[in-house]
Amino acid sequence: MMNIVEGPGFIPGELLAKINSPAELKKLDKAQLQQVCDELRQYIIDLVSVKGGHFGASLGVVELTVALHYIFNTPYDQLVWDVGHQAYGHKILTGRRDVFHTNRKYKGISGFPKRSESEYDTFGVGHSSTSIGAALGMAVASRYQGIKDKQHIAVIGDGSMTAGMAFEALNHAGVENANLLVVLNDNCMAIDPNVGALKEYLTDITTSHTYNKAKDMVWDLLGKISKFGPNAQEIASKIENAVKTSLLKQSNLFESLKFRYFGPVDGHDVARLASILNDIKDIPGPKILHVLTKKGKGYKFAEEGNETVWHAPGVFNKDTGEIIKVVPKNPQPPKYQDVFGHTIVELAEKNPKIMGITPAMPSGSSLNIMMKAMPDRAIDVGIAEQHAVTFSAGLATQGLVPFCNIYSSFMQRAYDQVVHDVALQKLKVIFCLDRGGLAGADGPTHHGAYDIAYFRCIPNMIVSAPMNEEELRNLMYTAQLEETPGSFSIRYPRGNGVMVDWKTPFKKIEIGKGRKVKEGKDIAILSIGHPGNLVTEAIKLLDEENISVAHYDMRFAKPIDEQLLHEVFAKHKKVITVEDGCIVGGMGSAVLEFMADNNYAAQVKRLGIPDKFIEHGEQPELYEECGFSPKQIAKTAVEILKPFIKEKQTAV
Amino acid sequence: MMNIVEGPGFIPGELLAKINSPAELKKLDKAQLQQVCDELRQYIIDLVSVKGGHFGASLGVVELTVALHYIFNTPYDQLVWDVGHQAYGHKILTGRRDVFHTNRKYKGISGFPKRSESEYDTFGVGHSSTSIGAALGMAVASRYQGIKDKQHIAVIGDGSMTAGMAFEALNHAGVENANLLVVLNDNCMAIDPNVGALKEYLTDITTSHTYNKAKDMVWDLLGKISKFGPNAQEIASKIENAVKTSLLKQSNLFESLKFRYFGPVDGHDVARLASILNDIKDIPGPKILHVLTKKGKGYKFAEEGNETVWHAPGVFNKDTGEIIKVVPKNPQPPKYQDVFGHTIVELAEKNPKIMGITPAMPSGSSLNIMMKAMPDRAIDVGIAEQHAVTFSAGLATQGLVPFCNIYSSFMQRAYDQVVHDVALQKLKVIFCLDRGGLAGADGPTHHGAYDIAYFRCIPNMIVSAPMNEEELRNLMYTAQLEETPGSFSIRYPRGNGVMVDWKTPFKKIEIGKGRKVKEGKDIAILSIGHPGNLVTEAIKLLDEENISVAHYDMRFAKPIDEQLLHEVFAKHKKVITVEDGCIVGGMGSAVLEFMADNNYAAQVKRLGIPDKFIEHGEQPELYEECGFSPKQIAKTAVEILKPFIKEKQTAV
Repeated sequence: MMNIVEGPGFIPGELLAKINSPAELKKLDKAQLQQVCDELRQYIIDLVSVKGGHFGASLGVVELTVALHYIFNTPYDQLVWDVGHQAYGHKILTGRRDVFHTNRKYKGISGFPKRSESEYDTFGVGHSSTSIGAALGMAVASRYQGIKDKQHIAVIGDGSMTAGMAFEALNHAGVENANLLVVLNDNCMAIDPNVGALKEYLTDITTSHTYNKAKDMVWDLLGKISKFGPNAQEIASKIENAVKTSLLKQSNLFESLKFRYFGPVDGHDVARLASILNDIKDIPGPKILHVLTKKGKGYKFAEEGNETVWHAPGVFNKDTGEIIKVVPKNPQPPKYQDVFGHTIVELAEKNPKIMGITPAMPSGSSLNIMMKAMPDRAIDVGIAEQHAVTFSAGLATQGLVPFCNIYSSFMQRAYDQVVHDVALQKLKVIFCLDRGGLAGADGPTHHGAYDIAYFRCIPNMIVSAPMNEEELRNLMYTAQLEETPGSFSIRYPRGNGVMVDWKTPFKKIEIGKGRKVKEGKDIAILSIGHPGNLVTEAIKLLDEENISVAHYDMRFAKPIDEQLLHEVFAKHKKVITVEDGCIVGGMGSAVLEFMADNNYAAQVKRLGIPDKFIEHGEQPELYEECGFSPKQIAKTAVEILKPFIKEKQTAV
Repeated sequence: MMNIVEGPGFIPGELLAKINSPAELKKLDKAQLQQVCDELRQYIIDLVSVKGGHFGASLGVVELTVALHYIFNTPYDQLVWDVGHQAYGHKILTGRRDVFHTNRKYKGISGFPKRSESEYDTFGVGHSSTSIGAALGMAVASRYQGIKDKQHIAVIGDGSMTAGMAFEALNHAGVENANLLVVLNDNCMAIDPNVGALKEYLTDITTSHTYNKAKDMVWDLLGKISKFGPNAQEIASKIENAVKTSLLKQSNLFESLKFRYFGPVDGHDVARLASILNDIKDIPGPKILHVLTKKGKGYKFAEEGNETVWHAPGVFNKDTGEIIKVVPKNPQPPKYQDVFGHTIVELAEKNPKIMGITPAMPSGSSLNIMMKAMPDRAIDVGIAEQHAVTFSAGLATQGLVPFCNIYSSFMQRAYDQVVHDVALQKLKVIFCLDRGGLAGADGPTHHGAYDIAYFRCIPNMIVSAPMNEEELRNLMYTAQLEETPGSFSIRYPRGNGVMVDWKTPFKKIEIGKGRKVKEGKDIAILSIGHPGNLVTEAIKLLDEENISVAHYDMRFAKPIDEQLLHEVFAKHKKVITVEDGCIVGGMGSAVLEFMADNNYAAQVKRLGIPDKFIEHGEQPELYEECGFSPKQIAKTAVEILKPFIKEKQTAV
């Protein structure tokens, strides 16, 4: 059962208050739907302004959400929300209104659809562009099972449509005679403005005469021409055939892929949406409905303001639109992502070979700083991690030095490209993996848990993580140096570092060299990356217990610092490893491999993300749960040393 | 330097004999190109018929290859061959004619373009669909560097075009004003016949009035209509505008994506190809040339025969077209892939929930057996590994049990989908990873080296490998049982098993349970999967030296059999682990993790694929190189036991 975090009461509007499931929604008259939309929108505004979370996307699909649940027989009909941060309205209408204030909180409901949370959440989402493939699987399953009345609907944004797997699914769906409806939610935005040819194409359809209008017009005019006598008739008929046989059947990208295309339609006219959905739902085969929406719709400050900012604005004053930022009295350490963003510009000013690449995360990665400063050298390739990596490899073949910035969990999308296109060819591509480790409120889809393990097994890869801002800068500096070989990954977490004065001068770091942070004799703690700071805190706690800890910042999981490890195992028989990554196959396992290869025996306890999916919550809550918060690290050290401490006490 | 395997002399034709680089080709008159094509084709036939290798694809692009090198200034111009098994002609024309008989042999030249082999090989390929992204990277680099005369060409098949990353690259290229030419080599085939909506679309373009013809015709007729007087003129003009503003600009899928589209053209008319390439090469921006070719072109038996068979026919009589199969006198063990293919049908006959999924590898995986027997239950989704996995997840949500068969190295393409769509949701998808381990002559792009490591770190995954046919059948049987939970991977190698009578009755295997193959007291060898048979051979060698070996077949890398390991480490202080996978993070590391977690000390030597990319060769050659051939395993055991053996001898 869900452990509900108590929160202030949010009062739903009159109609919304009665909707505990889509069954109540369906009982309403179509004329009442707009009121439901207004109340739903207001409820989202009331809640998110106080509790934070994703905002613009869910406001944009309020009418679509209401229309879908009004027309379709959910949860029997299978409704899949792509990415899922637009699904707040869906959650509120499907029985989660009164727990929605726990959204994204530790032990509260998830910010994304999640199968284990509700039968209305047919498919867990978080990463983009999975909805069409998943819904197609459901549709093919129904066809195979002889179930004819079940509908399968994927709601996908135009940004998500640029990812390769969405195209793979369209290409497959076009030849499966399965009951699939793709609703293309076109708002010209992902988190950042959508880029690419597809976006321009969708704009073309929308802003020029619409496709259907033009088609009608051509037929209409051809009819008129045919009245000019037999000669004209014949010519008109020839044109008609020429248009029909080749232009028309290929006249729409989605129709090229054998989908029936409908639209574009106004995504904020709920009655019309309901009518159209009702009309097309029983047309067999693959269909696409192109719906135009606006992110932030119905909340003036979001509609008029910066859409990227209003994607997830944090807490705000709903009356004034003022986003509430707690301004601390003292200067604070920067976010790691901003250290990346500023440092790449600094390095690129000196090294003309440097390029910056992001797959649709300019603001999330802070590459937007470089995009502003050097627009010809920083490229957003769209939601397309695979392409981002291979494109970077292409740049590298020509002697450029691409920094390819991808969130750790999204890098999973481009694993083969790292192996096959980068590492195998020893190409110099520098991967900056943001959101490495437990990512916080976004939860298990977004935790960057596996990158150390999945990169460490790839030959030629350098796998590193900085403990603080200075180290991040120095790793970036080192990676781009002419003499530094090959494929280099640098991972760092979501959130802030630890140095207020972080603009330190660049120093080269020797590849594969860790550093001794602190001497000590009772136990050695080896950490990699930012969790080294948790170790520092743990050491303070252990100091109070008179336990003397040696602390080593490994910096590199690969190549691992063998010289340093020889020193560690020569001095220590009790070792703890700490990483913000999976303990299966992670840095700690690299230490075990070193021990086996060099015949060392010691007691080694590996701390990190245990072998299960970790739910959402604030990072410190999750560190605690996973056992590598300062307190937990200290506790582990004490447990390991218990027999030894007793001996010491006895000796005293 | 390349260590050339000596082979019989192959005699090139008169013109081909003089072509040691494209420079000599360029000196020829255009009228001589057809003769070059004929000689090149003959040379490929002469060689492949005796030496084996890929065949149909390279024959199909002979004219295209000659035309490209004739018109473009390679290697200054960047020519990227997608997948690359069509690049034999390219290799022969670029200085590798006289070493071409070493193709795919151990220490010989690679069957794929490879940067380290030649400056003409601009990008290493092997996995499909990378060429557009890589060439776009090169083109953007040239633009940034102010290089205007350099051309960047991607040659990609229609099958490869279905993969998502090709679409991602098209979507990006459409908005980059970079000098990119995509040559779409359309033969309606990947290794197996191409499937999907895109293929049907390309067929439409090709078989109906061609797009350009129709376009011309419409304009022509509109011109004629306008002669019928002012009224007709006005109507014609309205039609023209309507067509222009919306139909025409969206009238071709590639033009929708902002490419300039040319074609389709006959890919076997070398003079015309050369003219067209020359005409379009200086048109700026992204361009696509649609070329129609036939796999196996110019070799009658391949043209008339089964294209899948002639993709890589092995050795054949070039005069009769007879494919030479060595028929052994005694019955032989089957290929693992065929055991999979027959067993899934056997299981599916009893369990109506079972479905079979392959991304474009029906013959390579032997899922074609099921596709023939149960066409509605075995689905080829095209070259689309990502979609294959998420589609399977969609099937699983509806209670079906998909077996998703993907080569180990191609599974790297769908890593995120396994994490995010399958394991995180605990969906019951069974992954059969063919080509797990060293794949042989295809080399480093195709070795399935990493799957144990990259799957082992994912929570909820069951990671298994059978030692023989019976075990494969039992693992498949166990995986599909109602009571077996979650996401299950079964990996097995390319090639044959070890059991002549392999159709054994099904037995359930307890999840996470290994088995003791043999008792022994001097040393324990733990293996997973097929290499257990190499251990069996090694044990015979060690028997001769009076070394007593215990052999454990772990079966599961995850969950690992802790009970069995307790037994092992209670009895043994000397242990060897053997796997046909990377030793970084592999099954051996799982054993080390168990030891650390349970405070065992023992000398453990991990054998497997070392931490470097392994080149191509026959599997036994590569096992030897990597140190886990029977001889090498035995040698390792002897080395570990040396001190102990001396003691024994001294004691005697």
